[in-house]
Amino acid sequence: MRGFFYPRSVAVVGVSENPANLGRGIVAHLLAFGYQGQIYPIGPRGGKIYGLPILSQVEDLPEPVDLAVILTPARFVPRVVEACGKLGITRVVVESGGFSELGEQGAALEDEIRGHLQQYGLRLVGPNGIGTINMEIGLALPFSQMGSPPRAGNISVIAQSGGVALHVFAMMARDGLGLNKFLSLGNKLDVSENEALAYLLDDPGTQAIYLYLEGLEDGRGLLSLAQKAAKPIFLHLVNVVPETAAIGQSHTASLTTDERVLAAACRQFGILWIKSQAEFLVGAKMAGQPPVKGNRLVVLSRSGGEALITAYSARQWGFELPPLPPPVERLIKERARSGIIKPTNPIDLGDIFDFSVYSEVMGALCQTPEVDAVLLNYGPVYEAERQEAREMARLLVEQARAAAKPLAVTVLATLEEGDFFREDLKMPVFHFPGEAVRSLAYSRVLWSRSEASLELTAPPLPAAGQIEALLAAHPQDGFLPQPAALTLVSALGIDLAPWELAASPEEARAAAVRLGYPVVLKLAAASLVHKTETGGVLLNLKDEAAVDSAFTALAKIAAEHLPPQEPWQVVVMSQAPGGPEVLLGVRRDRSFGPLVAFGAGGVGTEVLEDVSLRVAPIPEAEAHRLMAETRIGRLLAGIRGQPAADLGALGRGLVALSQLMMQYPRIEEMDLNPVRVFPGRPGLLAVDARIKVGQAD
Amino acid sequence: MRGFFYPRSVAVVGVSENPANLGRGIVAHLLAFGYQGQIYPIGPRGGKIYGLPILSQVEDLPEPVDLAVILTPARFVPRVVEACGKLGITRVVVESGGFSELGEQGAALEDEIRGHLQQYGLRLVGPNGIGTINMEIGLALPFSQMGSPPRAGNISVIAQSGGVALHVFAMMARDGLGLNKFLSLGNKLDVSENEALAYLLDDPGTQAIYLYLEGLEDGRGLLSLAQKAAKPIFLHLVNVVPETAAIGQSHTASLTTDERVLAAACRQFGILWIKSQAEFLVGAKMAGQPPVKGNRLVVLSRSGGEALITAYSARQWGFELPPLPPPVERLIKERARSGIIKPTNPIDLGDIFDFSVYSEVMGALCQTPEVDAVLLNYGPVYEAERQEAREMARLLVEQARAAAKPLAVTVLATLEEGDFFREDLKMPVFHFPGEAVRSLAYSRVLWSRSEASLELTAPPLPAAGQIEALLAAHPQDGFLPQPAALTLVSALGIDLAPWELAASPEEARAAAVRLGYPVVLKLAAASLVHKTETGGVLLNLKDEAAVDSAFTALAKIAAEHLPPQEPWQVVVMSQAPGGPEVLLGVRRDRSFGPLVAFGAGGVGTEVLEDVSLRVAPIPEAEAHRLMAETRIGRLLAGIRGQPAADLGALGRGLVALSQLMMQYPRIEEMDLNPVRVFPGRPGLLAVDARIKVGQAD
Repeated sequence: MRGFFYPRSVAVVGVSENPANLGRGIVAHLLAFGYQGQIYPIGPRGGKIYGLPILSQVEDLPEPVDLAVILTPARFVPRVVEACGKLGITRVVVESGGFSELGEQGAALEDEIRGHLQQYGLRLVGPNGIGTINMEIGLALPFSQMGSPPRAGNISVIAQSGGVALHVFAMMARDGLGLNKFLSLGNKLDVSENEALAYLLDDPGTQAIYLYLEGLEDGRGLLSLAQKAAKPIFLHLVNVVPETAAIGQSHTASLTTDERVLAAACRQFGILWIKSQAEFLVGAKMAGQPPVKGNRLVVLSRSGGEALITAYSARQWGFELPPLPPPVERLIKERARSGIIKPTNPIDLGDIFDFSVYSEVMGALCQTPEVDAVLLNYGPVYEAERQEAREMARLLVEQARAAAKPLAVTVLATLEEGDFFREDLKMPVFHFPGEAVRSLAYSRVLWSRSEASLELTAPPLPAAGQIEALLAAHPQDGFLPQPAALTLVSALGIDLAPWELAASPEEARAAAVRLGYPVVLKLAAASLVHKTETGGVLLNLKDEAAVDSAFTALAKIAAEHLPPQEPWQVVVMSQAPGGPEVLLGVRRDRSFGPLVAFGAGGVGTEVLEDVSLRVAPIPEAEAHRLMAETRIGRLLAGIRGQPAADLGALGRGLVALSQLMMQYPRIEEMDLNPVRVFPGRPGLLAVDARIKVGQAD
Repeated sequence: MRGFFYPRSVAVVGVSENPANLGRGIVAHLLAFGYQGQIYPIGPRGGKIYGLPILSQVEDLPEPVDLAVILTPARFVPRVVEACGKLGITRVVVESGGFSELGEQGAALEDEIRGHLQQYGLRLVGPNGIGTINMEIGLALPFSQMGSPPRAGNISVIAQSGGVALHVFAMMARDGLGLNKFLSLGNKLDVSENEALAYLLDDPGTQAIYLYLEGLEDGRGLLSLAQKAAKPIFLHLVNVVPETAAIGQSHTASLTTDERVLAAACRQFGILWIKSQAEFLVGAKMAGQPPVKGNRLVVLSRSGGEALITAYSARQWGFELPPLPPPVERLIKERARSGIIKPTNPIDLGDIFDFSVYSEVMGALCQTPEVDAVLLNYGPVYEAERQEAREMARLLVEQARAAAKPLAVTVLATLEEGDFFREDLKMPVFHFPGEAVRSLAYSRVLWSRSEASLELTAPPLPAAGQIEALLAAHPQDGFLPQPAALTLVSALGIDLAPWELAASPEEARAAAVRLGYPVVLKLAAASLVHKTETGGVLLNLKDEAAVDSAFTALAKIAAEHLPPQEPWQVVVMSQAPGGPEVLLGVRRDRSFGPLVAFGAGGVGTEVLEDVSLRVAPIPEAEAHRLMAETRIGRLLAGIRGQPAADLGALGRGLVALSQLMMQYPRIEEMDLNPVRVFPGRPGLLAVDARIKVGQAD
């Protein structure tokens, strides 16, 4: 990747003297941004541009440049790429559009290019993008006009849309946020977001990353980078709702991601999933500061009203405003003999015009490890005090920097003071206290991610032999027959209501006697997924007569609802005692891989919307956090005099399911719904299981 | 109120030649803002200020001015107010601090002032505020330096904190938003937020109102104004969490409001409850435009990526992006023969540089009543096309204005084009598409408020006589005894599980026989509120022996848990069939008055957090909307083959409870929890009731 950001020489292919030529923009940007390496404009008509001679073809280059940027019509691109390969050039950026985003013909061009990459060991960024930027060396490859040029700084951007990137650069510059590196993904023919991200996570110039994507092919790869990352990753992924999927397909060629999966995965691995550029800008303002490692915030405010607003936001974002540490309290009491300021948090300094109080308070806060972050509402600044106020501001910022204490500053009313912070103190400021609080909260995310790891290795499942035999016996794809599914549940060590199979009313009655009344009769057939819909489950059968007529009813349903030749059976199951119903499930996400779910089960699953997710594998501790996230999980943990359920057994069940998915790639999804939960032992009984498998190799 | 905004003459009391004098700021602002009326500075030391002579006392005024502004030390204020009254001055603004916000001594000064107001028929704004502003006539009374001066426009502000107001003015000006009128409430000694709001709702110069409050004494009064309002009210009320309550008391003297109540009341009456100034600024940008009356949005975008981001936000905020109306679709197909733009919504116009397409599309959208609003992502604008792009922009804005079609514009990348919109087209723009969508959503709130009205009159409750007799029999405040509470439930026409009272095991057994087994025994005593905690409810008693031992157990609990002399009884109740448990409740909020609640009942009430609220009274249709807001309500409405519950009976129960609160002010709260719900008739059975009453007059 380094070659795309630190080339010592650049060829720009597709340049002409024509004022409407787009390639000119690339050369113009390189010159304007102060790129010091060699620049070679190339175009068949030759001539001169910005004082540089235009070579007529790639073959005329005096040296194999470090990087070739191509902006010719799409149909010429494969040929140019090939020429680069022959010359020994190893890095190519293609900005031309007209490839797979327009259909089959364009996709064929991409295939052709792919062949050249393999042949010559070339790497390629794009096509259909705006290239890369590295502010450290003045490398700026976008062909399109950049609204407001970026300022240099420590934030790097990877984007799948040039338009989005250009707008973000303009908004960053307005807020005093500096860019370090940028990569425009375009159609991602070769270089992907994960490869670019891996590079930037190791890049010393980058302190935070904004990643704008319209589709996420390899979510699991992203998580694997994030779990070790020490820098905030702001993931802006819009292609997660049907509304964007429709237009997204015409814009790039991406697939829709499930919003709940994305949210769960990001939380688990400490990625900031943001829904707008505005959220990124807010978050980026703390990127240059030490991370916020806890939720104890102290607020200094020159406006009492803004202090209240800050306190409200603090609560919204999970911060505590603890009582002031004793040394700070003592200091304020000493310095404020008039009694106008009180030693509360927020500290309302509105009527203190002796600015030395501010820095003394700040000094004491910096010495206090129990304070995780400080928020300052600065201003309004009166004309007469401007110089003194600025000196105070400089001192506070220096104190915080020296003590590595995160400090967020909101500038009130006198907005021009914001320029002083941005330009003189090199510190972005917030426009509202709520934004400052939000940014501090974002800064906390990396330190509140779960300890779960994709590389977690658990001991293999004890009944592995039995599971393998079961799977081998069902080599076709589709749902496992109910008896096989139930057997697999038991093999996982998950308690199941006792059951037997019956092929006739007589067998059903005999089974019921062995199991003990009341029993449940269920029709088991591959094509019946939602059994309750068709009436395929008959509950609370208390005697022989009830079992008889239930069997007859199920036979009738089978005759009416099943395809003519489909075999069916009846499961006779001991009726589990009543109790809250939960759902335990696993499935494979196309992008994030195996997932584990827990939530409200039974008929309530769809309506209650009380299901939480994790990316598998998970250790038992994480299973407990997963359960605690749901309302049903909190209910099971016991309320007002009710005994708690056997959460241990549920947790072990979730871990076993998670492990199953890791060990047996053929299993596509598995649902235990409902699982009945009650106090005592066994604390849970699964009463239904649905397992979908892929075809055996 | 008019006198506070349109005075023809103003006296400023508390002015001197001393440069540190704060009153000077008021005179300076009046002059700087171009106030054309007569200005009389007053101060005991006389002299001159800004060319105006300083009168030495109020009595020296040549005329009873329309408005006197006072900024003297607090202890002199009562005397000055009295002097104003004697002169026939009827409007006074007090900006001095040092009153009730500092304690008892200050409160005594306020009492003194209150006396003068009554005696002379004076009205007063403040104290402890920064006065009023009316940009129409250059009236600007704040003493404190105004960071960035406000620009004139159509938004009015009422604020309980001067600091918050000044910051909002600065941020408004930055975003091209104009101020019309401002009133600083201060300690609200006389003029309250509701009085100021009522005036501004009728004020032709005001199109939207930002109301910043740190406490809300008369929420019901606010709702009564809002229910008829045709202008958006942005209510920023921070004193709704414990964190702000603590500091709030030292800052002003306000009480905390329950956040859930506030949210429900605002939704019901079409008030925009905002949590930050940033949200107000976003909302205010649509204030000058016709309201958005539906959720069908069409998006025009020059960036494909930003189109996706817009679509994502549209979904977040409840907008649909319907297929384009046929005339628009036809038009795009005709104009885009190259096939580069597709007739989708969002319309991606990124590659269209013929700007006449934009105005043709806009024209067609303006003609389509099925389009409720249009969102335009404008920019980036290339240097060469700037003039043409601006003409296009002007045309689009004019088209939308002429057709009264709400139009939100986001300016991308080339931020300086935003100035063109703000200055030349008098149109605020958005920085991000997400903000534009949010503002359109805010604009929809007035049109999506419920039809509920505080003046709703329902027929009196049928069993009014019985209810009155019951209340008369219990004149003390506190909880009604269980038998009385259960009787009142029946009087409301709400089905109750059959019950009898028993004073001995023998009576309990006899009652159980009459009611039919199984039964429930409950200990009924005033001081037992949460019966399940103490074990005071024994369920599922199936025979005589069970009833006997249950009675003995309850007697033991009574002996152990009740105060020695407290009488107790045992309620024998027929055990209601199992079924989902709900909660029906009413209570009086200190600020908003009677409230009705519905949600998940039984032991789950606290954990499931599934309760919704309405301000009473409510009609039956609103009761159904209330139920549908909860998860349990949606569950009862029936899912996958399950029969629906008798929602009609539940709705009538909620209306009866609501009506009870309106008719009987002595009832403070009433909870039916749990109410068991099941298919068939009766569709519900209340099994417990808790009623708290105030003392009879």
